[in-house]
Amino acid sequence: MDAIDVLRTKRDGGRLTPEQIRWIIAAYTDGSVPDEQMSALLMAVFFRGMSGDELAVWTQAMIDSGERKDLSSLGRPTADKHSTGGVGDKITLPLAPLVAACGVAVPQLSGRGLGHTGGTLDKLEAIPGWRADVHEEAYLRQLREVGAVICAAGNDLAPADKKLYALRDVTGTVESIPLIASSIMSKKIAEGADALVLDVKTGSGAFMKDVEASRELARTMVGLGEAAGVRTVALVTAMDRPLGRSAGNAVEVAESVEVLAGGGPADVVELTLALAREMLAGAGRSDVDPADALADGRAMDVWRRMITAQGGDPDAALPRPRETHVVTAPASGTLTRLDAFALGVAAWRLGAGRARKEDAVSAAAGVVWTAGVGERVTAGQPLIELHTDDPDRIPRAIEALEGSIGVDTEDELLPLVVDRIGA
Amino acid sequence: MDAIDVLRTKRDGGRLTPEQIRWIIAAYTDGSVPDEQMSALLMAVFFRGMSGDELAVWTQAMIDSGERKDLSSLGRPTADKHSTGGVGDKITLPLAPLVAACGVAVPQLSGRGLGHTGGTLDKLEAIPGWRADVHEEAYLRQLREVGAVICAAGNDLAPADKKLYALRDVTGTVESIPLIASSIMSKKIAEGADALVLDVKTGSGAFMKDVEASRELARTMVGLGEAAGVRTVALVTAMDRPLGRSAGNAVEVAESVEVLAGGGPADVVELTLALAREMLAGAGRSDVDPADALADGRAMDVWRRMITAQGGDPDAALPRPRETHVVTAPASGTLTRLDAFALGVAAWRLGAGRARKEDAVSAAAGVVWTAGVGERVTAGQPLIELHTDDPDRIPRAIEALEGSIGVDTEDELLPLVVDRIGA
Repeated sequence: MDAIDVLRTKRDGGRLTPEQIRWIIAAYTDGSVPDEQMSALLMAVFFRGMSGDELAVWTQAMIDSGERKDLSSLGRPTADKHSTGGVGDKITLPLAPLVAACGVAVPQLSGRGLGHTGGTLDKLEAIPGWRADVHEEAYLRQLREVGAVICAAGNDLAPADKKLYALRDVTGTVESIPLIASSIMSKKIAEGADALVLDVKTGSGAFMKDVEASRELARTMVGLGEAAGVRTVALVTAMDRPLGRSAGNAVEVAESVEVLAGGGPADVVELTLALAREMLAGAGRSDVDPADALADGRAMDVWRRMITAQGGDPDAALPRPRETHVVTAPASGTLTRLDAFALGVAAWRLGAGRARKEDAVSAAAGVVWTAGVGERVTAGQPLIELHTDDPDRIPRAIEALEGSIGVDTEDELLPLVVDRIGA
Repeated sequence: MDAIDVLRTKRDGGRLTPEQIRWIIAAYTDGSVPDEQMSALLMAVFFRGMSGDELAVWTQAMIDSGERKDLSSLGRPTADKHSTGGVGDKITLPLAPLVAACGVAVPQLSGRGLGHTGGTLDKLEAIPGWRADVHEEAYLRQLREVGAVICAAGNDLAPADKKLYALRDVTGTVESIPLIASSIMSKKIAEGADALVLDVKTGSGAFMKDVEASRELARTMVGLGEAAGVRTVALVTAMDRPLGRSAGNAVEVAESVEVLAGGGPADVVELTLALAREMLAGAGRSDVDPADALADGRAMDVWRRMITAQGGDPDAALPRPRETHVVTAPASGTLTRLDAFALGVAAWRLGAGRARKEDAVSAAAGVVWTAGVGERVTAGQPLIELHTDDPDRIPRAIEALEGSIGVDTEDELLPLVVDRIGA
């Protein structure tokens, strides 16, 4: 096998053979194909795409670079969810304990945030004592005893993806549907769940701003999941405005706890239940209604046990910011625009997210808003509260919000669930 | 400046600014932009191309990575020629001394062969004692005293190209007209000649098999030359059959000497004179007829002095091969096909060329044919003689020739000079 042949075949619009794909993924992972050849191939894939067959082999080769976990010893069905990332998207926090409370184990290997969308692990780390690292044995024990675990993925989970993702990040080859789909699905399939629900965000605050591209990504990922024997469904959901009433770390934990307590913002509750129903259906438990487990406190019980199992104190006070700043409503009327991207950037600039992988995040940083789109506001009322530990960050956060608030404008919003894509 | 911005701009079909181009070429040359980012950019250029303005800045940035030579101290006009490479293309050998004999200095910085086309330096090194390396001072002295020098380019000549070429070679980004044109022209412009004639080969034995693509490459290079203030003309010439009657190293030197002695194959003489007339015209000496300098022995005199100045003995016997093998004509009739690519591959496999840069070549290896296309042959007559130092190489050379010879077939040949492209 020769990397230049593989490169030229893809560059010229030909199809790669399964042998070529398996060889180049393995050779790149072990270092015998260098970065400069792989980055040229990734750019050729950006322009030429991949056929469904090519992509299925490519994704399988990424899975085979590590280990596909076997969760059959748990003795109960398993399901997981993946979101492509949005602003205020804390759904995993209430969702995992909720689904576990309904009898389906949730093995969620998660990541950290980069850029304007937050990371699930960053949010949970706002809870005093909570640890993202769970070793293999404790992971299985927690799944068995608590039913849900949200923790950092180990290095044995699709190591090819780790290397490819770092390379794509610096070579302008992130925005490619087959590369995005194979990156997400290689990790999610390797995780070993029976069923998978994908929350593909669409709109200004999402990675994919365009509904049609989001649908295509959803269809591509559902195809890859089914090809690997995982029951997979995708919901394409709105990210033109943020989810809930907060974006950040501690603020999103607090909001998640409200949802688990039976309250919380309506959109977060609605989406959590919609995704829970899909996960339960995928795991063969469509007979169970997750709304009951939320109402009767079973989901909250699992949450408390899940946090405790990873060293966290579910009753501890969450970090508070050193500085807050209030942005008021610019006019009276109906709030018709609250731009997700702008709020995500503001939270990021306040310290909730990181610009580079090695940056630390601030647990207390974030943004809280007192009204959601569709609600009435009065000129001058406090609308957005900025939280930060560093007052110097406030001016640039305010700058990010410019033009993000609309009262009585003609903005048309997406429905919360735009589409459902099954096999 | 940020490499990812540059990459994304080109990837998405935007135009790079002059500042972006200058920055990325300089940063790649000094190592601050790594190979994996540049190879992704080169692949994006492969797909998106470059505008004329972008390419002129890109080429100038490559020139500026080193030094553009100043030959004004010579006190006489200068002209050079570049060929995109063909089989049996020994034209530089008689051409440089011929043009020098007509009063125009020829500063030819040349390269080595890779693949099925030979390299000028490899051919000249078949002459006992001849050295390709000439240091700066001796180079200028030889240009002043002899009028012609053919030698290896130093490391100060467009170092960006050296690095880019090595990268393109392993990343499937060689076959891109803007990248080919900027690679050739950055070196040729940096060489400092007043006028430049490009011999753009077209046909099976050429790098560009297709006449239209060859014309586009020619137009692109002429535009770059003129933009840099070098009078530039391109001839698009036939490489569907090989040039002359030999392909290899010593065999091509012998044929070149025949031409300088007033004999030699008609096509080699015709192309040498056509290119000489263009070089002389470009250098402001269209009043001189190079045919006279060939006929009266002046070109041969310059050749002898040029070889001697670089340590060679123009009277020494050339290396002879240890083994020869004769391929006979398959039928009687008119020779209508003698495929350039096949003969080039045969010569290469016999040891005349190299597969990798670090390989050595055999001076005695090559192929000689007794008839050219359009001539009559008789079944069984010796037609192609294979020369090698290693008899084990003969079977694969014979294999390369399969289907390459046609007698009374319908093949349509290109005219020797297909097109002339000026500013």
